[in-house]
Amino acid sequence: MKKVAEDDPRRIVHSFKVGLAITLVSLFYYFDHLYVGFGSSAMWAVLTVIVVIEFSVGATLGKGLNRGLATFLAGTLGFGAHHLANLPGRELQPILLGIFVFILAATVSFIRFFPRMKVRYDYGLLIFMLTFCLISVSGYRDEEVLEMAHKRVSTILIGGFTAIFVCIFICPVWAGEDLHNLAANNLEKLASFLEGFGDEYFRKSSEPESNKASLQAYKSILNSKQSEESLVNFARWEPPHGPFRFRHPWKQYLKIGSLTRQCAYRIEALNGCLNSDVQASPETCRNFREAFIKASSETGKAVKGLASAMRTMTLPTGDCPQTAKSKNAADNLKSLLRTGLCEGIDIVEILEVATVASLLLDILACTEKISESIHELASLAHFKRLEPDEKDGNPDLDKQKQVWQSSNSIASNHHHHIITIE
Amino acid sequence: MKKVAEDDPRRIVHSFKVGLAITLVSLFYYFDHLYVGFGSSAMWAVLTVIVVIEFSVGATLGKGLNRGLATFLAGTLGFGAHHLANLPGRELQPILLGIFVFILAATVSFIRFFPRMKVRYDYGLLIFMLTFCLISVSGYRDEEVLEMAHKRVSTILIGGFTAIFVCIFICPVWAGEDLHNLAANNLEKLASFLEGFGDEYFRKSSEPESNKASLQAYKSILNSKQSEESLVNFARWEPPHGPFRFRHPWKQYLKIGSLTRQCAYRIEALNGCLNSDVQASPETCRNFREAFIKASSETGKAVKGLASAMRTMTLPTGDCPQTAKSKNAADNLKSLLRTGLCEGIDIVEILEVATVASLLLDILACTEKISESIHELASLAHFKRLEPDEKDGNPDLDKQKQVWQSSNSIASNHHHHIITIE
Repeated sequence: MKKVAEDDPRRIVHSFKVGLAITLVSLFYYFDHLYVGFGSSAMWAVLTVIVVIEFSVGATLGKGLNRGLATFLAGTLGFGAHHLANLPGRELQPILLGIFVFILAATVSFIRFFPRMKVRYDYGLLIFMLTFCLISVSGYRDEEVLEMAHKRVSTILIGGFTAIFVCIFICPVWAGEDLHNLAANNLEKLASFLEGFGDEYFRKSSEPESNKASLQAYKSILNSKQSEESLVNFARWEPPHGPFRFRHPWKQYLKIGSLTRQCAYRIEALNGCLNSDVQASPETCRNFREAFIKASSETGKAVKGLASAMRTMTLPTGDCPQTAKSKNAADNLKSLLRTGLCEGIDIVEILEVATVASLLLDILACTEKISESIHELASLAHFKRLEPDEKDGNPDLDKQKQVWQSSNSIASNHHHHIITIE
Repeated sequence: MKKVAEDDPRRIVHSFKVGLAITLVSLFYYFDHLYVGFGSSAMWAVLTVIVVIEFSVGATLGKGLNRGLATFLAGTLGFGAHHLANLPGRELQPILLGIFVFILAATVSFIRFFPRMKVRYDYGLLIFMLTFCLISVSGYRDEEVLEMAHKRVSTILIGGFTAIFVCIFICPVWAGEDLHNLAANNLEKLASFLEGFGDEYFRKSSEPESNKASLQAYKSILNSKQSEESLVNFARWEPPHGPFRFRHPWKQYLKIGSLTRQCAYRIEALNGCLNSDVQASPETCRNFREAFIKASSETGKAVKGLASAMRTMTLPTGDCPQTAKSKNAADNLKSLLRTGLCEGIDIVEILEVATVASLLLDILACTEKISESIHELASLAHFKRLEPDEKDGNPDLDKQKQVWQSSNSIASNHHHHIITIE
């Protein structure tokens, strides 16, 4: 229980929000002058709040709008069906109503299988079917169908608005923000793998398993598709908020996510090599080892830079120095591989190392594609652009520069460190 | 629209089933002597049918049982809360009711975040919250709370049973069967990749892209986790049906699925090599090429054997000949790699080929794990065991033997074919 709360403290707030919204809407029952208008239909408002209120604003809005619109449409249609069935007389009415209900229920159930409808309007279709059946069928007994339809629509609107109001104005949870952070987090997981991998691979037997956790973090990316898709779907219902303007390119996140997953699949394969029995011995040729660690960690840093650019929604104009460094390191590794670096080495070892190196190069190619798609996002979503030669004391720029400098100094330290060991 | 129906014709049947169930339950409104007992509460039965009926039996049962049990429990508790709030007098009643509702709603909303509860009882918790609020709150106005609670429980039971009845007895769709078939299909996709891959890799430029489709089929495995998990969850609600007995080991399918996905991740990485610019030239040493194609296609056949064993739920006792063949071929490839097969060959080419070969060997190791987990399933689920030396004219055995023989003859033809080309 503690873990559930610690994982995301917003869950506790959400629980209180649900309690508050239901208590608010149940006031209709307690105050006489509020109750008079609706009578026992007021329970539809309570029911709507409970069913509509969700964790994120987007999900609540999507459900609320679906429910409101579907109820209105189905109420109108049900009222029409009731009148149509009334025309031929009392005897035929149940038969006609039965036929209408059957046809509508079967059609709507089939439409719910359409992938596009399923994603965005599944709940609306369910409510459409439900309201139509309730209005047209119970209209057979209750003569005041119009009043019933009216009451149902208005109580549902009240419930829906209460849920949406509480959800938006009390500590809102934005699906768009969650999606944006998820994308940045996933990039950071890739980055920490790449930064740690070179060292891990060449020193496997000698060091304790301290940084294994950061090397395993990428595993959560493998199955992230579903949650990403639902977040995108929720985010598209949301109004502009924070740095996300109207028509923010949410679908671009799916592209970035899919490339990130492709990268993670390759890392998973690479990890298979790490866990296999044959390991490159620590003596495997020096040049190669240096090139390898450098390519991996420089790319890790470049990806980390992308992640922080995502997070702050600022992107340096032009090529960033880190990307150029990572490309250089990769080219270096490639040419070493091509020229058959270590002549005296055992063929078994070279085969193992070659596999790891090719996979790594494949991963680096993947990160380049990710970088492209993030630049695409940046131009679509109008990220802040930082001129590298700007010197007006812009605090954002200073911060950004500090990040670059510190990562550069780490890079050179790191490099130095390697040389020292050798 | 046509595509949705063609993909799975059971969808059309399902749509008619929904129409039928709703029409059945709405009979309560049309016949006077049925209507008398429930009055306008009869609409709860219609509502329950619409909300509970789902595509598969397991999903319907899960929702129906959740709804029934939650309504019963919450009805009892709501009745108790109503009485408790009545004790101090009319003035304090709304305040006490408000506090009860707030506490219960907040608690249940929080419990819904627990992963275990979310998977199996999410819907039940929602309905629990809903019914409690309805009974305790509307009890403030309606003095006959007990009767209302009783009506709500019984109409929901009627609706739930109608939905479950229609779902089970008219062309049932079993989630367990779907899960079993999904596992077998995924294995077949792996098998067709492995069978086609060797040829594809070594003849890339020369042949048309005819069998690309079978090489791409594995991609759907990559994101199969979510649908597998929900099918397992549904299947666990289902009664014994067809070959699946009581307490069928559904969770073992998750293990098989996770191993299948691991295999697919490696195939995705391997496919990255297929699409990269550097390709092994057709002249790459003969021995190696033969060993490579053989290892890949023999393993493909072994996996296909496993898939058909899954599908027919029969497993030959002892090691099947195909598995032994595939292991031999893999060992052969390994030893060729170890001894540094082709001395005269260009280093760039050998590096490329070595990468593909290591990945392939990793995939073969993965398929062995899959085979183990299927044998585990076979013993847990009491698959039929076929003695290889049985000669009593068992038709299943004959069929199975035919499969083995035909695959063997294809194998030898295939082998012959390769030699001819060379």
